[in-house]
Amino acid sequence: MDMNKGEVLFIGNVESVKDNLSKIKIYEEYIEGLYRLSIFSHIIILYWFHNRDNEKDRSVLRVIPKMHKGAPEIGVFTSRSPSRPNPIGLCVTELSLIEGCVLNVKGLDAEEGSPIIDIKPYLPRSDSVSIARVPNYMQTGLST
Amino acid sequence: MDMNKGEVLFIGNVESVKDNLSKIKIYEEYIEGLYRLSIFSHIIILYWFHNRDNEKDRSVLRVIPKMHKGAPEIGVFTSRSPSRPNPIGLCVTELSLIEGCVLNVKGLDAEEGSPIIDIKPYLPRSDSVSIARVPNYMQTGLST
Repeated sequence: MDMNKGEVLFIGNVESVKDNLSKIKIYEEYIEGLYRLSIFSHIIILYWFHNRDNEKDRSVLRVIPKMHKGAPEIGVFTSRSPSRPNPIGLCVTELSLIEGCVLNVKGLDAEEGSPIIDIKPYLPRSDSVSIARVPNYMQTGLST
Repeated sequence: MDMNKGEVLFIGNVESVKDNLSKIKIYEEYIEGLYRLSIFSHIIILYWFHNRDNEKDRSVLRVIPKMHKGAPEIGVFTSRSPSRPNPIGLCVTELSLIEGCVLNVKGLDAEEGSPIIDIKPYLPRSDSVSIARVPNYMQTGLST
């Protein structure tokens, strides 16, 4: 096994995005992994920034978050920039409906066609930190 | 480009775990990506379940969460099981100190030696959902 890297398998993809609602298709061989998912109201989606999976975007180490007025230059790990060494996106979404292999979620910030790499239940006890400190420039504008 | 999978690079690893405190070493070539990270109090760590990166663990689609009394059999994406198609762990941690290439974080559930694949700032506006619904068996015991 190569000790410097790993392989991720795409388990599905974003089929459509309309307003705040996204439809995620999970590939047939992984559908069993969704069993009982609807007992959770929110899920964490890990997806692949497929349009940034190239040497140039994966070499970015510093960014200026343009969507946030007043943001200084920061390290890529201090940001949610899609251009980063590993093009992995993370989004907390509301699970509104499961139709067979299609998950309907609200609030996903992935583009149409983005591969999905993992789905995890959202657990407030470990995942919710309402009091976390953020810089001023993150308190307005886009939420990420 | 293979359309069914992607490659993740290991950007660091968990150097030590003692009680609630973990030291994460970021490899030299990625240190610049940490610039200004300390403006955030909490960070999301994505890491690699390296001990589960094998065909057997990556084929798991259903699990019974043993750490949670009364949990039924559920799909792997309904769980935070380390045995899953993509062995990616996700943990919200408190960033307590940065010493050069070493991050000191509280609450990381990764084992010593686990490769790190991404670090993201924790943004309460998008990442904190205190009212998310979870089943009863998740309300006690381990937080994940």
